[in-house]
Amino acid sequence: MTVEVLGLDGDDTLWRNEEYFADTQRAFRALLASYVGDDIDLDDRMNATERANLELFGYGVKGFTLSLIETAIEASGGRIAAADVQQLLDLGKALLRRPVALLEGVAETVPVLAEEYRLIVITKGDLWNQEQKLAGSGLAELMWRIEIVAEKDPATYKRILGQYDIDPACFVMVGNSVRSDILPVLELGARAVHIPQEHTWVQELAEHDGSVPTLESILDLPAWLAVNG
Amino acid sequence: MTVEVLGLDGDDTLWRNEEYFADTQRAFRALLASYVGDDIDLDDRMNATERANLELFGYGVKGFTLSLIETAIEASGGRIAAADVQQLLDLGKALLRRPVALLEGVAETVPVLAEEYRLIVITKGDLWNQEQKLAGSGLAELMWRIEIVAEKDPATYKRILGQYDIDPACFVMVGNSVRSDILPVLELGARAVHIPQEHTWVQELAEHDGSVPTLESILDLPAWLAVNG
Repeated sequence: MTVEVLGLDGDDTLWRNEEYFADTQRAFRALLASYVGDDIDLDDRMNATERANLELFGYGVKGFTLSLIETAIEASGGRIAAADVQQLLDLGKALLRRPVALLEGVAETVPVLAEEYRLIVITKGDLWNQEQKLAGSGLAELMWRIEIVAEKDPATYKRILGQYDIDPACFVMVGNSVRSDILPVLELGARAVHIPQEHTWVQELAEHDGSVPTLESILDLPAWLAVNG
Repeated sequence: MTVEVLGLDGDDTLWRNEEYFADTQRAFRALLASYVGDDIDLDDRMNATERANLELFGYGVKGFTLSLIETAIEASGGRIAAADVQQLLDLGKALLRRPVALLEGVAETVPVLAEEYRLIVITKGDLWNQEQKLAGSGLAELMWRIEIVAEKDPATYKRILGQYDIDPACFVMVGNSVRSDILPVLELGARAVHIPQEHTWVQELAEHDGSVPTLESILDLPAWLAVNG
């Protein structure tokens, strides 16, 4: 079947994201250095806190910032000073304020794709922050639909395809996360294209069996669709 | 024109919400009592922090919790102990975990309304938390559509009416917030019904000119619609 609708992930597919979280965790480790011995792996502690809070907080910068503060209190044995907690709040705010930076190839490729296909951004995280990112991306007007969702699982994709009357056979999802952009879409009988990024959040790690089309860059997507779409 | 679609606000229209924030701010004041003199009005400080952070955080419990922590650091002159910051984190988590409690009359009235009208919940706040509330409300199956939005302004209502092909003349919005549920809907030429609640967040305060139909309880809505719809 011919591709009619193209789903595009936002974070780390259209714009830089995970590397900014990594920058923030680097600043977090530096801030905590005076409280915490070398025997404590702060990244491990942070991952454990985030995992424990995920069911309650969901995705996004605000929950991440709350988890940073919780990890700092725990890892410092309750010794972290209020001024340093404020620094963590400020790191979270800086992350929210960071201007949107499109990934290489996106600015040239998305307008080309928009001429051929109906484009739908499907992205998860804080509604408020994702809307600001979309507004800052300059891409919103090229999109047929924008779906900011709480979780990217088969039920969510099924709801979206149903709501807009999209035949799974005519839908291709494009993204960097195997767990969120690839596997749930394949489960519905639609297709997916994987464009890996260097940084992937540890809670998103998953693998596909190698049969999923994998591109080095979004720049290769129009050619791939011309042949396979 | 006959009413076909009924918009229902979530927080403080279908279920209790603002009073839980008020409970949390009471616990916050008690926790800060040992740090802060009587000359400091903690509610004023918290309102100022929330107002300053609104553009960055948007609505919802996670941003509220971050603002609680920031207010505590500032109001205590940087003296708040890490253990007490953890208490604030725990207050935020307790707020997120609080089970959904429907307001009086909702459980009886919404099924009656669903027989006559297409119902659409239009609610703002954290996507993750609002979805959990809807799931916990037992009302989701009665809804024709669910729209969790970042801001309830005329542009948002216009998008929703357009997306679902709803004639403003056939739409009535029902809610407790004049600012979010009434004024932007009137601006589009649709109608609105105000059901005030005892607790209203200070950032939501607004007035209408008295010409807006105002009901004491959702229990009165079917009769109002039968006459005016």
